[in-house]
Amino acid sequence: MDDGNKSTQNTSINLSRPIRCIVKLGGAAITCKNELETINEGNLKEVSAQLRESMIMESSSGKVLGMDWSKRTGETDNSFAFDCFDDQQSLDSSPFIVVHGAGSFGHFQASKSSVHKGGLAQPLVKAGFVATRISVTKLNLEIVRALAKEGIPSIGMSPFSCGWSTSNRNIASTDLSVVAKAIDSGFVPVMHGDAVLDNILGCTILSGDVIIRHLAEHLKPEYVVFLTDVLGVYDRPPLEPNAVLLKEIAVREDGNWSVVKPTLENMNKQVETSVAAHDTTGGMQTKISEAAMIAKLGIDVYIVKAGTSHSLRAMSGELRDYIPDDWLGTVIRFLR
Amino acid sequence: MDDGNKSTQNTSINLSRPIRCIVKLGGAAITCKNELETINEGNLKEVSAQLRESMIMESSSGKVLGMDWSKRTGETDNSFAFDCFDDQQSLDSSPFIVVHGAGSFGHFQASKSSVHKGGLAQPLVKAGFVATRISVTKLNLEIVRALAKEGIPSIGMSPFSCGWSTSNRNIASTDLSVVAKAIDSGFVPVMHGDAVLDNILGCTILSGDVIIRHLAEHLKPEYVVFLTDVLGVYDRPPLEPNAVLLKEIAVREDGNWSVVKPTLENMNKQVETSVAAHDTTGGMQTKISEAAMIAKLGIDVYIVKAGTSHSLRAMSGELRDYIPDDWLGTVIRFLR
Repeated sequence: MDDGNKSTQNTSINLSRPIRCIVKLGGAAITCKNELETINEGNLKEVSAQLRESMIMESSSGKVLGMDWSKRTGETDNSFAFDCFDDQQSLDSSPFIVVHGAGSFGHFQASKSSVHKGGLAQPLVKAGFVATRISVTKLNLEIVRALAKEGIPSIGMSPFSCGWSTSNRNIASTDLSVVAKAIDSGFVPVMHGDAVLDNILGCTILSGDVIIRHLAEHLKPEYVVFLTDVLGVYDRPPLEPNAVLLKEIAVREDGNWSVVKPTLENMNKQVETSVAAHDTTGGMQTKISEAAMIAKLGIDVYIVKAGTSHSLRAMSGELRDYIPDDWLGTVIRFLR
Repeated sequence: MDDGNKSTQNTSINLSRPIRCIVKLGGAAITCKNELETINEGNLKEVSAQLRESMIMESSSGKVLGMDWSKRTGETDNSFAFDCFDDQQSLDSSPFIVVHGAGSFGHFQASKSSVHKGGLAQPLVKAGFVATRISVTKLNLEIVRALAKEGIPSIGMSPFSCGWSTSNRNIASTDLSVVAKAIDSGFVPVMHGDAVLDNILGCTILSGDVIIRHLAEHLKPEYVVFLTDVLGVYDRPPLEPNAVLLKEIAVREDGNWSVVKPTLENMNKQVETSVAAHDTTGGMQTKISEAAMIAKLGIDVYIVKAGTSHSLRAMSGELRDYIPDDWLGTVIRFLR
């Protein structure tokens, strides 16, 4: 796949510190996929806490310094412990970028109006574009708030507003300088799959996975973690009996990939996967392809279940040198 | 005031149609200013309906085609009349930009942490920056939804995400091409006062009024309307006895301004105004100065009470040639 980013304007990417990790919060992991616009609160809270642990140096007092000072529906106590901030020498966190999928946000609106097919002149598509952006930015705000509550200096950044656009669904234009500046100022950009303008189709849907690949290509993180709702990539739909977790996949120069671990006889290289019917941006097959393209850049990719000890180990960078046998997940690596 | 925008990157502003109007939804008009993060629902609904009437050609069926298909707290009915869209030949609206203030959103967070003074290295300022952006984007989402519900193809665009930054509080960098592309695709950008990065101070607050002046300067709308919570500009705080509504203010080449109508003897040129103590971005005095700088560009500015027949007349463009005596509001014009 050629993302046609020859015209991409990335003139001013000057990061003072390299990005440590780009984390994808999969829609399936943080929302209840079959309930319209419903967040999986428990998972999101756990994921946020793990992200904090992975990226923030311990505060001197050990307290979490919440950065969401907004009212919450149903909450009466809106007092904040501003005094705590005086204890802190700094709130340094290592550079992370968070990208999230849509899950039960956005997909309904997008598929009802076929936004991904383009055609902004049609009233239904135009309305669907507006409705999709409302839904995904609603989710983005909730995720930014959940992270901020855990003391992560999160900043919502919509690809549409950041000037991302496509040409026949391939990324045509992005201005990564805004993302880079936010990172250099010590913030954690929180991006998301979005409805964007397409200079051939009029509009389309830009998936979180494609965003991650583009960010990885241009910002060169040390590693990338995909948080999902299953342990990793399996050789067939994970709920089927005898489904085998693929622990290590090697990607070759030509882009082809093969399973390195476990070494099973007769294992079908063509991994069967499950794709939910309402997932307009593709399922596990797309994820492996995107992950393989990132791995080809020499960046290790971990696909792992959100909110487990395995995801914490992947996000904290513990697996970079050595992957212990008791770690459950899929690592995708470039075979040099 | 020099906004120092010599370094502003506005290389690709190619609007296919000129902007008709930039509308400022004043924080005082659309929120309950003394209640933390509370929207004035009635006012916002009325303002949204008037905006629709001002910018959208009547739909063939006369029906409002809602573009907010998201769940609302407390609402059980989330059915949408998708069929209606088939009736429509087009949803053309004349080019408008909406900019809103913060009112009871953002000000609390910003003033508690002095974000406007900068100093991102201080944990409280950094946290306040995050908290302020959460609060103002929360309001932005609600306003985008209110407009979309009225059939306005509204798109939330945060200045921070769009790459707006300042240098010692003056606008240093903006990329208006994203705004222009959204307008050319038939959308109504909804921007807002925001916390932004400042290359001298670290960060600051960029007010909605400064955003409007910048947009007016570069996108040259036919006219600008400020919706507020009083009838217009008075010669003293509006609640004082004998306060006189200034119906017409003329701005001269040198930037000085004078009251043309009414012609009162002994009227103090120095208009007294009320500035709410928690309004970190200035009150009516700032508004007049900003409005005068817009008027100097040859663009008429109307300051008018939101949700009245007077605001509808101003937004619809009815007053451009002739202002009838029964119109209540303040027009600020360049005296050639």
